[in-house]
Amino acid sequence: MIKIVEVGPRDGLQNEKTILTTEDKFEFISLLSQSGLKTIEITSFVKSDAIPQMSDAVALFTKVEAGLRNTKINLPCLVPNLKGYETARSLGVKEIALFSATSDAFTKKNVNATIDETFERMKDVAAQAIKDNVRIRGYISTAFGCPYQGKMDVKKLLEVTQKFFDLGVYEVSVGDTIGVATPSQVKSYIKELKKNFEVEKLAMHFHDTRGMALTNIYVSLEEGITTFDSSAGGLGGCPYAKGATGNVATEDVWYLLQSLGLETGIDIEKLALASKFILEKVKRNTESKFLKAYFNTGKV
Amino acid sequence: MIKIVEVGPRDGLQNEKTILTTEDKFEFISLLSQSGLKTIEITSFVKSDAIPQMSDAVALFTKVEAGLRNTKINLPCLVPNLKGYETARSLGVKEIALFSATSDAFTKKNVNATIDETFERMKDVAAQAIKDNVRIRGYISTAFGCPYQGKMDVKKLLEVTQKFFDLGVYEVSVGDTIGVATPSQVKSYIKELKKNFEVEKLAMHFHDTRGMALTNIYVSLEEGITTFDSSAGGLGGCPYAKGATGNVATEDVWYLLQSLGLETGIDIEKLALASKFILEKVKRNTESKFLKAYFNTGKV
Repeated sequence: MIKIVEVGPRDGLQNEKTILTTEDKFEFISLLSQSGLKTIEITSFVKSDAIPQMSDAVALFTKVEAGLRNTKINLPCLVPNLKGYETARSLGVKEIALFSATSDAFTKKNVNATIDETFERMKDVAAQAIKDNVRIRGYISTAFGCPYQGKMDVKKLLEVTQKFFDLGVYEVSVGDTIGVATPSQVKSYIKELKKNFEVEKLAMHFHDTRGMALTNIYVSLEEGITTFDSSAGGLGGCPYAKGATGNVATEDVWYLLQSLGLETGIDIEKLALASKFILEKVKRNTESKFLKAYFNTGKV
Repeated sequence: MIKIVEVGPRDGLQNEKTILTTEDKFEFISLLSQSGLKTIEITSFVKSDAIPQMSDAVALFTKVEAGLRNTKINLPCLVPNLKGYETARSLGVKEIALFSATSDAFTKKNVNATIDETFERMKDVAAQAIKDNVRIRGYISTAFGCPYQGKMDVKKLLEVTQKFFDLGVYEVSVGDTIGVATPSQVKSYIKELKKNFEVEKLAMHFHDTRGMALTNIYVSLEEGITTFDSSAGGLGGCPYAKGATGNVATEDVWYLLQSLGLETGIDIEKLALASKFILEKVKRNTESKFLKAYFNTGKV
């Protein structure tokens, strides 16, 4: 059994230029919830001017919480700071995601802080969340490479992973933010991670920028990884913008996993309906070859 | 060292709707020849009404032979029958490719013959080629699945592979014609093939219809395969036509191989120039994610 963390509504949509209504996002999440996905990251409680696509976090979370209360689906939200956490918490969030990176240049550019400073900021959030019995997941960006610093060392990844577990996260998601990881790199980095951490507490988060995501997932599976982040339809980033491409498509991950005899609990037809809906809303075609073939032939 | 058999000018272009001039095809092949590729399949000596894109085989081969005579590049051509062979031979061809499949429904549809009948036809061609000291390569279509018969059994693949070696081919290319092969299937079929044939005499030929080609290549490498067929830019088949998609892109294969420390002799910048040229001529974007990223960023 493999755990899929669907990040389409958050990581996917925040990189799409077309701003959607709360109603459309809710419909997308609602369709996703019917596909058998057990974890759907739904939004990010950032300042409303920081990421316009996420500016309706309060309204969206409220709607989703009300609509999906009776499902057992896990609905984490990203929080950038204590203020974001408090808002999320006041709405009843049960799991949050915190984030940092292995590159100071990247965190500087993204949140105007060094890596150490991001952990300083997260300390209070994590402490409060633990007190509130809210689960915490940690995201590490640029684990394999950074747009500003180039290839990233595994040592830094080990350090930052440790920092996250020290905060009290239950899982660390290792992110290939710009899609530069290659199978041999992934294999060797996971081998190092496994020397220091339990493999069950590690998730892999690939972007398919250079077409390596599925092979990277394949070698991750060989190394014992059982949790992967992905976006329905491969949402995220216009394929024609410089270096900006989406998460690996959940459908691609499903297709690989089922071919290997691994279970995800996903109903692919229902998942494809959710992707079809959202792709029409963001007005673009999927980058997933499996999904294209499925849309073209109507068959898996 | 991995051998790449560039099939863009033949398998790629024959599935493109835009009919090109002989001059453009020659320019494409000429650009490919500058990229370090050592084997380029350039055309098919079919009847001129069978595949319009290949109707200039005589003119193209003549031009290529004259232009690239002084390179050491291997320039095989597909031949469907003795007549095609004799034409090719009269022009000085040094290597031919013959083809069959593992599905009678497929060969019936394609060349109006059963598998056995295709081998009957090929017998005379092969005998003559051997007499002429012309090397022969064998293509097996639908090795993993057929559009008419569904999933194909490995037994049939073993049988047809044996038939090809009995003809005297030096190498058999195992083709996933419609891009339905999955990594576990590829692994298990190669394991069976290896029990009966030398792995050095086997090549894998993947189409990336469902995004599995690179992972399939990865597992093929694990099984000891050292020869792969691919098309520059991922030529072949309009991505929007039902079930018709291209060969795995040579650039994708290169990117995977170099990341694993495997040599191909390819200069990626020069190869990308050839792909850019031909993609403009057939008026479409590449389906290769690596190549898209390369075109967008100008960096590998």
